[in-house]
Amino acid sequence: MAATEPAAIDPARAAALDAADPLAGFRDRFVFRDPDLVYLDGNSLGRLPRATGKRLAQVVEEEWGGDLVRGWDHWLELPTKVGDALAGTVLGARAGEVLVCDSTTINFYKLAAAAIKARQGRRAIVAAHDDFPTDRYVLEGLAAANGLELRWLTANPVNGPLPRDVAAALDEEVALVALSHVNYRSAAIADMAGITRLAHDAGALVLWDLSHSAGAIPVELEASGADAAVGCTYKYLNAGPGAPAYLYVRTGLQGELRNPIQGWFGRRDQFAMGQGYEPAPGIASWLTGTPTIVALVAVEEGVRLTAEAGIAAIRAKGIALTEFAIELHDAWLAPLGFELGSPRDAARRGAHVAIRRSDAKRLCAELIEAGVVPDFREPDSIRLGLSPLTTSFANVRTAMDRLRDLATRAAG
Amino acid sequence: MAATEPAAIDPARAAALDAADPLAGFRDRFVFRDPDLVYLDGNSLGRLPRATGKRLAQVVEEEWGGDLVRGWDHWLELPTKVGDALAGTVLGARAGEVLVCDSTTINFYKLAAAAIKARQGRRAIVAAHDDFPTDRYVLEGLAAANGLELRWLTANPVNGPLPRDVAAALDEEVALVALSHVNYRSAAIADMAGITRLAHDAGALVLWDLSHSAGAIPVELEASGADAAVGCTYKYLNAGPGAPAYLYVRTGLQGELRNPIQGWFGRRDQFAMGQGYEPAPGIASWLTGTPTIVALVAVEEGVRLTAEAGIAAIRAKGIALTEFAIELHDAWLAPLGFELGSPRDAARRGAHVAIRRSDAKRLCAELIEAGVVPDFREPDSIRLGLSPLTTSFANVRTAMDRLRDLATRAAG
Repeated sequence: MAATEPAAIDPARAAALDAADPLAGFRDRFVFRDPDLVYLDGNSLGRLPRATGKRLAQVVEEEWGGDLVRGWDHWLELPTKVGDALAGTVLGARAGEVLVCDSTTINFYKLAAAAIKARQGRRAIVAAHDDFPTDRYVLEGLAAANGLELRWLTANPVNGPLPRDVAAALDEEVALVALSHVNYRSAAIADMAGITRLAHDAGALVLWDLSHSAGAIPVELEASGADAAVGCTYKYLNAGPGAPAYLYVRTGLQGELRNPIQGWFGRRDQFAMGQGYEPAPGIASWLTGTPTIVALVAVEEGVRLTAEAGIAAIRAKGIALTEFAIELHDAWLAPLGFELGSPRDAARRGAHVAIRRSDAKRLCAELIEAGVVPDFREPDSIRLGLSPLTTSFANVRTAMDRLRDLATRAAG
Repeated sequence: MAATEPAAIDPARAAALDAADPLAGFRDRFVFRDPDLVYLDGNSLGRLPRATGKRLAQVVEEEWGGDLVRGWDHWLELPTKVGDALAGTVLGARAGEVLVCDSTTINFYKLAAAAIKARQGRRAIVAAHDDFPTDRYVLEGLAAANGLELRWLTANPVNGPLPRDVAAALDEEVALVALSHVNYRSAAIADMAGITRLAHDAGALVLWDLSHSAGAIPVELEASGADAAVGCTYKYLNAGPGAPAYLYVRTGLQGELRNPIQGWFGRRDQFAMGQGYEPAPGIASWLTGTPTIVALVAVEEGVRLTAEAGIAAIRAKGIALTEFAIELHDAWLAPLGFELGSPRDAARRGAHVAIRRSDAKRLCAELIEAGVVPDFREPDSIRLGLSPLTTSFANVRTAMDRLRDLATRAAG
C-alpha cells in the first residue's frame, strides 16, 4: 500500500474500528444464520434478535396455546405498553403519546385525515416528491377525497427538504405539512424543530414519518413540538417483516384530532359493546381493530434491545459507519464514476448511505450474488443500510471492496 | 336415571356421539396444553394448530433470520395466495376475489367507504343495532363524515335481520346495506342471497361481515351475488390473536370500487416507487401497508386445516354440537329459568349457542373458575362457541352439567 493512500483502505483500519466499537457485543444478540453474508439492508428489514425467536415461541405455545382467550387479560395492554416504551427510549415522547398498532400506511392515513379535518377550511397539503411512496400515495388519496391542493416541495434529492423550501410553500391555506424525518433514499435528516415551528407559525399541523430515523438517530418529538408522527418497526427496531407500526399524537392535541376509523378497540369501555361510538380516553382512541399479538411482542423485544444499547451509542456508531463508508467511497468508488447520494455532513445524515452510478441496478443484483445485500432505489442509487446494532466496520469494508471489483469489471 | 328423562343427559350419549364423529381426529391436530380445560370460546379465539407453531418457528428462524429482506421474494404473494385458498375452500368465491390483509375493522372501513363513494348521491346506510360493535362504529364514523343517514333495522336479537326487515328499510336513497352473515351473539344466519337480491333491486351495494360464519358454515359469496365481504381469521380459522383479516370484492365490481387508503402495497408496480398513485390490477389494489408476515402464515395454516376437514363435515358437526347443547339446555337449564338466545332451527343457526339468564355475567365468571371457558355477552347471554374442529360432545356435556350445578346453587 502506498503511503499516500487514504487510511480508510488499510484492512487494519476496519479491524481497529470493530475492536474499539462499544456496541460490537450487540451483534451476538442477533441471529446470523449465514456468517459470511454481508447484510446492509437492516434499514429495509432489520435482523432477527435471538430473544425474539424465543419470545414468539413462548407467546404462541404458552399464551395462545395455553391461555387461549384469557390471554387478552395481558395482551390488551400491549399497544400502549410497547408504545410507552418506544416513547421514552426512542422517540423523545411522553407516556400516553405513542401507540403500536396497524401499519405505517394505515397510521399515516388516520393522522393525515384527522389533521385535515382539524384544519377544515384550509385547502392545501405540503409534501415532498422525494418522500417515501406510501406517504405520497395516501396524501394524494386524501387530497382528492377532500378537494385539497397538494403542494410538492422543490426536489432536493440529496439534502432533503430544507426549512426554506417549506417556508416557500406555506401560507394560511395550508392545513398539513407531512414529511419524512430521514429521507428513505438519501438519509438526509430534516430539521424537525425548525420545520415544525414554521408550519405552526402558518397555523398548519405537522405529521412526521420516522420510519428511517427511529432507532437510528435521536428523535425528539416533544422538544421539537411535532404534532403527530408515524413510523415502522421492522427497520432499525428489528421487529420483523410487516410488524405493527406506531403512531404519536402530542398530549395537547389529543382532544382535537380524532381517529377517522372508528373501531371497537378505540372505543371507551370496548367490551360493553354498547351502542354509539365514543372514543376511548387518550392515545387508545387511535386503535382500530384487534392488534396482532404475535407481531406486537416482537416489537417489544426490538424496542427493548434498542433501549438497552441506547440511542446515543447507536447514533455515534451510525455516524462512524457512514463516515467510514464515505471514506471508502471517495477512495475507491468516486474514481470509478460513483457519486455520493447522501449528505456529507454527518449531522445531517441518518444511518444509511446512498451511492449513485447509472448502472446501479445491475451492480446491486451482482452484489447480492456476491454475498452483499444492499438495496437498489430508482433511478440510480445503491442504498447501504448500516444498522448500528448489527453492522460491523469489516462488513462495510467488504461491501465496498466487492462493489469496487464489480464496478471495475463493469466499467472495463 | 328415570326412563322418562331425555336421552341427551345419559352420559353414554356424549361418548357415542364422539365415537361416531368423523372429525374427532382433528382434535389431535391442535394443542391442548390443559387437557381438562373445556374451551367453548373458539368463536372468539380459536385454538392453536400444532402445525402453526412449527411453521411460525420456521418462518421466524429461517425466513426472517436467514433470508432476511430476500424473504419478500416469496412473502409478497402471501396476501393473494392465502386469499385464493380461502376463496376456494371456505368462502365460495373465485381466485382473485379475496385478499388477506389488515384487520376486519380496517377492511370493513375500506369497503364501506368505497361502496358509499360508488353510490355517491344516495344518502343512507342500512345496518343492524344487533351487529358486532366494530362494524356499527365504523359505519357511524363514515355516515357522519359523509353526511349520510344510518337506518338501523328493527331489533331481532334471536333470529337476526330477516329479508322483510331489510326490505322495509330499503329505497332508492340507500347506498349500502352492511350486515353480519352470522350474528355474533345469537348465531342467527342471515339470508345472504335473499337480502343481497333485495338490496340490488333497490340499487344498493351489500357488504357482509363473515367473522362468525367463515369456517363454521358454508359461505357462498359468488352464488349469493354478494358485492363485498370481510371477516376475521382468529375465530373458526384458528389463525391466532389478531391475525390478519380478509376481504372480498366480486370480480364484476373490482373496476368500480376503489380503496380509499392508497398505500404502496396497493399500487401498480410498487417497487418502482414512482410518482402518482395508480391502483394495482385486481384484488391487490386493496392492500395498504406492509403485510404482517408471521401472522399471515398462521392464516395459511388455519385455512389449510379447515380445507382439509371440509366445510360440509364442519357444518354437519356444528349442527350436531349445537343441537346437543340445546337438548341439554332444555333438559337441565330451562327448568332453572334459562332461555335459549339462538334460533331453534338448525338451518338458521351457526356454530355457537347463546343461553340467557339475568345472572349470566356472574355465572360466566364462575364457569371459568370451574374450568369451562365460554364468554359473556351483554346483557344476559352466555355464549357457547362449539368450534367443530376442536370441540367434543363430552365438552358440551361437561359444560352444561357444570353450568347446571352453578345455576342451581345460585338459584338456591
